[in-house]
Amino acid sequence: MRVLDVIVAKRDGHRLTDEQIDWFISTYAGSEEIADEQAAALVMAIFLNGMEDDELAHWTGAMIDSGDRLDLSSIDRPTVDKHSTGGVGDKISLIIVPLLAACGAAVPQLSGRGLGHTGGTLDKMEAIPGWKAQMSLEQMHEQLRTIGGVIAGASAALAPADRKLYALRDVTGTIESIPLIASSIMSKKIAEGTDALTLDVKVGSGAFMGDLASADALARAMVRIGQAHGVATSALVTGMDDVLGVAVGNALEVREALDVLAGGGPDDVVALSVALAEDMARLAGLDADPAAILASGAAMETFDAMVRAQGGDLDVGLPSAPQRREVVAESSGIVQAVDARHVGVAAWHLGAGRARKEDPVSAGAGIMCLVRPGDTVAAGEPVLELHADDEERFARAELALDGAVPIGDAPVDPSPVVIETITDP
Amino acid sequence: MRVLDVIVAKRDGHRLTDEQIDWFISTYAGSEEIADEQAAALVMAIFLNGMEDDELAHWTGAMIDSGDRLDLSSIDRPTVDKHSTGGVGDKISLIIVPLLAACGAAVPQLSGRGLGHTGGTLDKMEAIPGWKAQMSLEQMHEQLRTIGGVIAGASAALAPADRKLYALRDVTGTIESIPLIASSIMSKKIAEGTDALTLDVKVGSGAFMGDLASADALARAMVRIGQAHGVATSALVTGMDDVLGVAVGNALEVREALDVLAGGGPDDVVALSVALAEDMARLAGLDADPAAILASGAAMETFDAMVRAQGGDLDVGLPSAPQRREVVAESSGIVQAVDARHVGVAAWHLGAGRARKEDPVSAGAGIMCLVRPGDTVAAGEPVLELHADDEERFARAELALDGAVPIGDAPVDPSPVVIETITDP
Repeated sequence: MRVLDVIVAKRDGHRLTDEQIDWFISTYAGSEEIADEQAAALVMAIFLNGMEDDELAHWTGAMIDSGDRLDLSSIDRPTVDKHSTGGVGDKISLIIVPLLAACGAAVPQLSGRGLGHTGGTLDKMEAIPGWKAQMSLEQMHEQLRTIGGVIAGASAALAPADRKLYALRDVTGTIESIPLIASSIMSKKIAEGTDALTLDVKVGSGAFMGDLASADALARAMVRIGQAHGVATSALVTGMDDVLGVAVGNALEVREALDVLAGGGPDDVVALSVALAEDMARLAGLDADPAAILASGAAMETFDAMVRAQGGDLDVGLPSAPQRREVVAESSGIVQAVDARHVGVAAWHLGAGRARKEDPVSAGAGIMCLVRPGDTVAAGEPVLELHADDEERFARAELALDGAVPIGDAPVDPSPVVIETITDP
Repeated sequence: MRVLDVIVAKRDGHRLTDEQIDWFISTYAGSEEIADEQAAALVMAIFLNGMEDDELAHWTGAMIDSGDRLDLSSIDRPTVDKHSTGGVGDKISLIIVPLLAACGAAVPQLSGRGLGHTGGTLDKMEAIPGWKAQMSLEQMHEQLRTIGGVIAGASAALAPADRKLYALRDVTGTIESIPLIASSIMSKKIAEGTDALTLDVKVGSGAFMGDLASADALARAMVRIGQAHGVATSALVTGMDDVLGVAVGNALEVREALDVLAGGGPDDVVALSVALAEDMARLAGLDADPAAILASGAAMETFDAMVRAQGGDLDVGLPSAPQRREVVAESSGIVQAVDARHVGVAAWHLGAGRARKEDPVSAGAGIMCLVRPGDTVAAGEPVLELHADDEERFARAELALDGAVPIGDAPVDPSPVVIETITDP
């Protein structure tokens, strides 16, 4: 097999053969035989010429085969997981993992850390004093058996080809490709060993996918890949023009998740949690009513057990940032939006996110949204509350917030929580 | 300037700005700041999304600016050069450089070595005992002033960006791109400092461009680049389905060039030499009749002076390969073709060409074509004569020659020498 033949085939718009895919992925992940410039040329050709459905499924399979695929067959609960493409204020995993566990499933959620303006689930969990993301395979199996829910750091042994390819894509302008995004996400989720998977594909200003057509295409591509690999997969396309809930930032979002687990919290967070949980329960074959279980407090007990099992202690209280500053309404009227991108970028400037994967994050930093789209405000009334460890953080955040909360005369209809559900792509 | 912005602009089909082009070429050629994988992604995006005319002219200018552009203004003859995209049996430079010098021009032909199945002009000249391709800039100027013709190795200081980009393209499947080929050729030729340039763009089985549409597009792209840079440029698209002349191989082709300079030689070689020379004379503003000057023997005297000035001695005789083998006609009839690709690849197997740029070439190896398209042959009559330094070379060459000289019943019309002349693209 020659790498030039693989590059030229994709350059000229052909489907790569299964043999070419297997050889390329295993050789690139496992040796230095294929130079990075050769892989870059192939990846740009994939970006521009695309992949056929079965080709993409095979490509994803080769990425899974570059590492371990966890075997959860010894767990006597149906396994199901959720993956979100990333949004601003998206603390749904903290709710849904214990909720599905309380419904009777085992949820093996292996996550990464956040990069850029959307936070990572591990960063949020790490705001809980003492909580540790790393655990052994034995610990994970034990926790899935006894508690049913695990949120943990993904082992480097899962889909190592993705790590190398993602780093390459990051420096070569080839991130935003539907087949490459879909195979990156799905290789890691399928390698987790889950039997079922619900995808939350976000669309809007604060999401990776800005328009519905792209989000729909990504969702369908991922569902096809999951189903091709024997994982019961569906996708909900959900809105991300406005912040999800009212809290953005690691500890602030943990607190909001606890509110929801306690039966309260913002309506949109509750609605999206229930919608995703119902889909997951359906895929897992569970006869359970997630809304009722959430209301019963059972999910809160499960979350508490999950946190304790990984060394965390919610009783000592969550960290909070010492510096606060309010942003006020510039005029009187109706809040037209609480723009997810503006707020996400500002929270990132405040210290809630990282620019490089080596950077630390602040547990306490972030933004509380004091108003929601459709609310009526008076000029000078506070609309956002910024939290930071250091006053110097405010200036850049305030710049990023210019235009974040537009105020006008038009009444605002509540956005639908779920725009589209894809079960049969 | 960020390299990602440059990659993403071309990935998304935009014209690169002049500033992006200047920054990318100077930075890639002159530092390690841009990684090869980033340049590879850009080059694949250029391959697939193309370049606009003025963008390509600017790109070529940046490649020229990465090194020296020779100043030939002190030469008191008009300067003109010819470039061929490479054919099998293409010894035209050996005829045309002294011919134009004899017409009154200065011809600064700086060449590279051959790679693959089409030979390089330097390899052919180096078959002449004692001849040296390297000379100083002062020697070159002096020879242009006194003799008028120079064939020499291109200095590494001419368009160094092309050397780095070409090496990258070679390993990333991005050679066969019209803008990238055109800018590679034209950056080197314009950097030579010539005032005028005639391009011989070959089309056919033995050429880099197999079909007329591609050859035409390449020719027009190169003429536009030359004209944009103030070089009077035109292109002749010429046929390369059959071997040019009857000799293929370094010393064999020198001998055929000497035959033409002496007033003989195959008709097609004479006709193409005269057609190119007339175009060059026109571009250089010379009132000269190349056919008459060729017949007068003046070009032979100039060639002899050029060879002597660079240490060569034609009187000691040209090297010849000790091993010979004939290929015979399998049936009786009319020779339908003497296929350029088959013969070129076979000559390469015999030792006339190189697979890697470090490889040596044999001066004597090659093929003499004993018949031409349209000739009548009897079964068993020899049609090709193979020359090699070593008998072991014959087996692979004979395999490559399967189908090289098809014989049939149909009469064969002589192919036109010049298919198309492009002066105003």
